[in-house]
Amino acid sequence: MSNNKICESADKVLENFISSLDNVQTSHHRVDSQKIKCGFGQLGVCCKLCANGPCRITPTSPKGICGANADTIVARNFLRAVAAGSGCYIHIVENTARNVKSLGEARGEIKGMNALNNLAEKLGITEPDLHKKAVLVADEVLKDLYKPKFEKMEVINKIAYAPRLKNWEELNIMPGGAKSEVFDGVVETSTNLNSDPVNMLLTCLKLGISTGIYGLTLTNLLNDIILGEPEIRPAKVGFKVVDSDYINLMITGHQHSMIAHLQDKLIEPEVIKKAQAIGAKGFRLVGCTCVGQDLQLRGKHYTEVFSGHAGNNFTSEALIATGGIDAIVSEFNCTLPGIEPITDKFLVKMICLDDVSKKSNAEYVEYSYNDREKISSHIIDEALESYKERRAKIKINIPKNHGFDDVITGVSETSLREFLGGSWKPLVDLIASGKIKGVAGIVGCSNLTAKGHDVFTVELAKELIKRNIIILSAGCSSGGLENVGLMSPGAAELAGDSLKEVCKSLGIPPVLNFGPCLAIGRLEIVAKELAEYLNIDIPQLPLVLSAPQWLEEQALADGSFGLALGIPLHLAISPFIGGSKVVTKVLCEDMVNLTGGKLIVEDDIVKAADKLEETILERRKSLGLN
Amino acid sequence: MSNNKICESADKVLENFISSLDNVQTSHHRVDSQKIKCGFGQLGVCCKLCANGPCRITPTSPKGICGANADTIVARNFLRAVAAGSGCYIHIVENTARNVKSLGEARGEIKGMNALNNLAEKLGITEPDLHKKAVLVADEVLKDLYKPKFEKMEVINKIAYAPRLKNWEELNIMPGGAKSEVFDGVVETSTNLNSDPVNMLLTCLKLGISTGIYGLTLTNLLNDIILGEPEIRPAKVGFKVVDSDYINLMITGHQHSMIAHLQDKLIEPEVIKKAQAIGAKGFRLVGCTCVGQDLQLRGKHYTEVFSGHAGNNFTSEALIATGGIDAIVSEFNCTLPGIEPITDKFLVKMICLDDVSKKSNAEYVEYSYNDREKISSHIIDEALESYKERRAKIKINIPKNHGFDDVITGVSETSLREFLGGSWKPLVDLIASGKIKGVAGIVGCSNLTAKGHDVFTVELAKELIKRNIIILSAGCSSGGLENVGLMSPGAAELAGDSLKEVCKSLGIPPVLNFGPCLAIGRLEIVAKELAEYLNIDIPQLPLVLSAPQWLEEQALADGSFGLALGIPLHLAISPFIGGSKVVTKVLCEDMVNLTGGKLIVEDDIVKAADKLEETILERRKSLGLN
Repeated sequence: MSNNKICESADKVLENFISSLDNVQTSHHRVDSQKIKCGFGQLGVCCKLCANGPCRITPTSPKGICGANADTIVARNFLRAVAAGSGCYIHIVENTARNVKSLGEARGEIKGMNALNNLAEKLGITEPDLHKKAVLVADEVLKDLYKPKFEKMEVINKIAYAPRLKNWEELNIMPGGAKSEVFDGVVETSTNLNSDPVNMLLTCLKLGISTGIYGLTLTNLLNDIILGEPEIRPAKVGFKVVDSDYINLMITGHQHSMIAHLQDKLIEPEVIKKAQAIGAKGFRLVGCTCVGQDLQLRGKHYTEVFSGHAGNNFTSEALIATGGIDAIVSEFNCTLPGIEPITDKFLVKMICLDDVSKKSNAEYVEYSYNDREKISSHIIDEALESYKERRAKIKINIPKNHGFDDVITGVSETSLREFLGGSWKPLVDLIASGKIKGVAGIVGCSNLTAKGHDVFTVELAKELIKRNIIILSAGCSSGGLENVGLMSPGAAELAGDSLKEVCKSLGIPPVLNFGPCLAIGRLEIVAKELAEYLNIDIPQLPLVLSAPQWLEEQALADGSFGLALGIPLHLAISPFIGGSKVVTKVLCEDMVNLTGGKLIVEDDIVKAADKLEETILERRKSLGLN
Repeated sequence: MSNNKICESADKVLENFISSLDNVQTSHHRVDSQKIKCGFGQLGVCCKLCANGPCRITPTSPKGICGANADTIVARNFLRAVAAGSGCYIHIVENTARNVKSLGEARGEIKGMNALNNLAEKLGITEPDLHKKAVLVADEVLKDLYKPKFEKMEVINKIAYAPRLKNWEELNIMPGGAKSEVFDGVVETSTNLNSDPVNMLLTCLKLGISTGIYGLTLTNLLNDIILGEPEIRPAKVGFKVVDSDYINLMITGHQHSMIAHLQDKLIEPEVIKKAQAIGAKGFRLVGCTCVGQDLQLRGKHYTEVFSGHAGNNFTSEALIATGGIDAIVSEFNCTLPGIEPITDKFLVKMICLDDVSKKSNAEYVEYSYNDREKISSHIIDEALESYKERRAKIKINIPKNHGFDDVITGVSETSLREFLGGSWKPLVDLIASGKIKGVAGIVGCSNLTAKGHDVFTVELAKELIKRNIIILSAGCSSGGLENVGLMSPGAAELAGDSLKEVCKSLGIPPVLNFGPCLAIGRLEIVAKELAEYLNIDIPQLPLVLSAPQWLEEQALADGSFGLALGIPLHLAISPFIGGSKVVTKVLCEDMVNLTGGKLIVEDDIVKAADKLEETILERRKSLGLN
C-alpha cells in the first residue's frame, strides 16, 4: 500500500493530514494507481451491452458488431447514466414524501409549519388540519411518482415556471410518472433497443425535468416540513467540528428525513445519561456529504446535537481516520466504498438504513417511520457499544486548524429573500447596477480528477468572484468551498471591487452556501422567482451553472435539469460524450435553440470562467444592461 | 467496407449468401473488425460510474479510486444488466396487459377463450362476462407491476410453484412491484450506492423471479388471450418464406399484441385489393426475431397472412439484403442498428411502434389499442408506397434452398401436454425408463462470438440429443436450430438410439420449438407441471438449461430466473463476471445451497454437454432412476 503519492487538494490542511496517515489508504492515494484512463470509456464509445462485446469504436471499426455507431453508443451510455442518476433522486423524494405522510398519519411534530402551508397552497390543498394536510401533500407527490409513463405528472404544473412548462410542452418532454420515466430510460438503452441519439437526448431532458422538480425541488420543500426551514447563521465546518469528548456519529447520505427522529432522540436526557455513564459528555452528529450539508442548513434548529459539517465525499475517509468518529449512519450515497477498510481499522460501527446503499461491512437496518423509536434506540446502543469498545484502543488524531468557525450557512430561497428584506429587488438592483455582474451556481459533486480534490471548484469560484459574479453553491462543491474559507465573510476580500463592497455591506461571503446537491432545487426556485420578478424567462437571466467537479450519475441528471431550465452548464470533465459528433452538437450547440441551455465542457479554469462570464455578459446585453 | 471476411454460421446457406453480398455490411462482417476485445470489460472489472473514472481493476490497482474492489464492480455491472434486462420484459408484459385490458374494454375479439378462462381461474376471477373478465385479469397484472417495492406482488402466488415460493420467501427474495424492483436495481448500482456483492446478487434473483413470472410466463398467457393458443403443426422457415409475389412486411420485436390488429387487417378483401392494384398478390408477414417466432407458434390461426419465420436477430440484415422485404414493423428489440443502412440501400420503409426502441432512420408511430385502425391503415399505406417505390429499382435475390418446410412448431405447455394425450405421464414414463435421459432447455439469444452464428447452439444441441437428452428451445436459439433442420422430424436421425426411437414413433424432432424467448415462461410451466406430477421440487427434475449464445441484457434476467427456479444454467460466454471471486463463487457454487441452481460457464461444446449430462445423471440418481 503506497501512501506516499496523493492527489492535490484545494484544502491544504486536509492534504497534509492525508499524506501524514500511516497505513490508511484513501481515494486520494488511489488516483495515482488509476491514472491510466481508458480512452474509449472517456469518449463514451465502449459498449458492453451484449455478449458479442465489449465493442469499441475506432476509425477502423466505426461500428459495433450489431451496427451501433458512436452516436448511438454514446447517447445510450449517457442516457443510462442520466436515468440512473434520476432514479437516485426520485428514490430520495419518494422516501421523503413517505416520511411526510407517515408523520402526518402519526400526528408527529411538524417543524416547518410555514413550509407545509406554502407547499399545500401551491398544490391547492386547503385542508385545515395540519397533519391531514401533510398527508395530502405527500400523497400528491407520491401519486405523480407512480403514474405510468403515458400519464403526465401534475404537481409539476403547480411548481415549475410557466414559460418553462410551455417550452417543455412544445418539445414534448413533459415527464410522465417519474419512476416509469427512469424505468423506460433504462429500457431504451438496453441491447438493440433505441438507436436514435436525438430521441435519447430528449429523454435525458425529460428525466432532467422530473429529477429537478421532484427529486430536487420537492425533496427540499418536503424536508422543510419535517425538519424545519433553513435560517441564515454562522457555523463551524471542517474537522474541528469533531469534539472527542462526545460520542460522535457521522452521518452520510441524502435522506435527511430518515435521521430526523435520531437527532431529536440524541439529546433526550436519558440518552445523554447513557453516554455520560461511559465517560462521554453526550452525543454529537458530525455532518458529512449531503445529509450533513442539509443538517447544517437547518442547524439553527439543532444546535445541541449537530456539531457542524466536516466535509464532502472525498473528505469522509480522512474524517474516519482521525479516529474521532465512533459510529456511522448512512442512508444513501455518497458513501464511498473506500471507507469500509478504514471503519474496520478504526473500529467504527456502520449502519445502513436503506438497502439500495448497503455497504459490504455495514449492518443493514430497514428504516421505516413507524419503527423510528426502535431504530434510533438500536443506533444509540450500537454507538455506545462502539465508543466503549474503541476509545481505549484507537488514538484520536484530529488535525489542528482544519475548517472555519464563521461559515455563513442556512441560505435558502426563503431565508435569502427574507435576508434581502422580503423581496428580490435589492439583488435585482445590484445586478442591474452592475455591482453584481451576474450569478453563477457552482454545484454538484467533488471529484479528484479535475485538477485534484476541489481544486477546479475552488479556483473557478475565485476566478468568478474576482469578476464580480456572485456564487450560489449546492452539493459537495459547498463542502470544498466552505473548508477553504470561501463561505466565510472574510472571503469578500477575494472578490472584485464592487462585489466586495456588496458583501462587506451585507456581511456575507461572495459564495453563498445552499447546502446539499438537493438544494440545486432551491437555486431553481431562486431563478424562477428572479425571472418572475423581472417578468422574463429563465434563459434570459444573467445566470450560469457549473458543476466543475461533477462525479456521479446523479450530477448528470441534475445537469440535464439545468439544460432543460435553459441555463448554460459548465463541466470540467466531459460526461463521456466526446466520441459522438451528434451528441456533442446537440448538447453544446443545438440545445440553445431547444431550451436555451447549453453544455460547456472546458477543463481550463480561466477559460471556463471566460466562457461563463461571456454568457452572463451576453444575457445582460439582451436585457439592456451594461 | 470489407465484405470478405465474415464469421462462421451454423447455417451454411446463410453464410454463403452473406459472403456473396456486394456492398452490404452485416454484423457477420463486423465480428472481425471488433475481434480485439477489452479484457477489463470481459472480466467485468471496468467501472464508468463517475468522473474519476473510468477505473479498471488490475493486480497493481485492485480498487477503483472510490475504493470499490473487483467484487463490488463486477456485481454492480452484472446487477445493472439484469435490472435493464428485467425492465425490457416488464415493459413487454405491461404493454401486453394493457392491450388485453383495452381489448376487453372495447369488447374486441378474444381468440383464446380457453386461455382467458384458465388464467382467470388461476387468479380466482369468476366474472362471467368474458370481456370484463379480460379486463379484470389485466388489472391484476398491472396492479402488481405498479406496486412499490415494499409491497409484494400477488399474482405470483397464484402462478409460481409452491415449493419455489417457499424457497424464495426463505431467501427473502420475493419481489415487490416489478417496475419498482427494476428501478431500485438500477439505483442500487449507481455511483457510491451499494457495495455488497452478495446483497446485489440476491437482488438479481429477485429480478429474475419477477422477470420470469411476469415478463415471461404471464406475457405468454396474456398473448394467448388476444392471439389464440399455439397448436402443433409443420411450418416453413428460412428465407424461402419470402414470396416476392406479395408485399412482404417483416416484423421484429417482442410485443406481438401490438401487431394483432394489423395481421387481421392485411387479409381483408379491400386491403388485398389495394395490393393487387399495384401488382402484388396481397400482403404477407415475414417473421423475424421473437415476435416472428411468436406468430409462428400461433401460425395455425394465421395461415393466410403469415408466411413463416425467416430467422433470428443475426439473420435479419441478410433477410433485408435479399431485397424481398418491402417494409418493416418493429416494436421492440432485437432490431439491430445494423439493419438501418441496409433498409436505406434497399429502400425499405421502417416503422417503430414503441419509442423505447426507436431506430434512427425509422418513422415512429405511437401504438395504442384504441388507435389500431389508424395505425394499421398507416402501415398498410406505407408498405404499399414502399412496394411501388422500390420494386422497379431493387433486384430481389433470395438464396435458394434456405430453410425447411417441415419444422414442427406450435409447441406450448398446453399443446405438448395435449399431444401427449392430455397428461405428462408419457413423458415422465419415457424419462423414468431412461429412453429420454433428461430434458435440456436450449434458450435465449443468438450471438456471433460463441464459435460463430448459432454454432455453439447447434453443436450443443446435436451433442445432447446424441446423448438421448430431449431439447426444448425458446428464443433466437430456436431460429438457429430450425434453420439447420434440427426442428424437422428428420433430425431424429441425429439423436441417440432411444431418443431416435421415441421421436420416430411420435413423429417429432428431438428439438422442440417453443418459439420466442418469452416462451422460456412456457418451459417454466412445463417444469412446474412435471414437478407437480411427480410431487417434487423443480431442482430435483432431470432438467438443465443452457443459453449457450446469450446476447442481451434480457438473457441475463432470464438466466437469473433459471437460477431462482433452481435449474443449472450453462452459458458459453461469461456474463462479464470472471473478475470477481465472490460473484463467481456465489453464482457457480453457493447458489446450489440457496435455490438449487448453479451457473456453468463453459466455452467448449463437448465439455458443456458433459457437464449438463452429468447434472441430469445426478438428478436421475437422486430420484432413484438409473
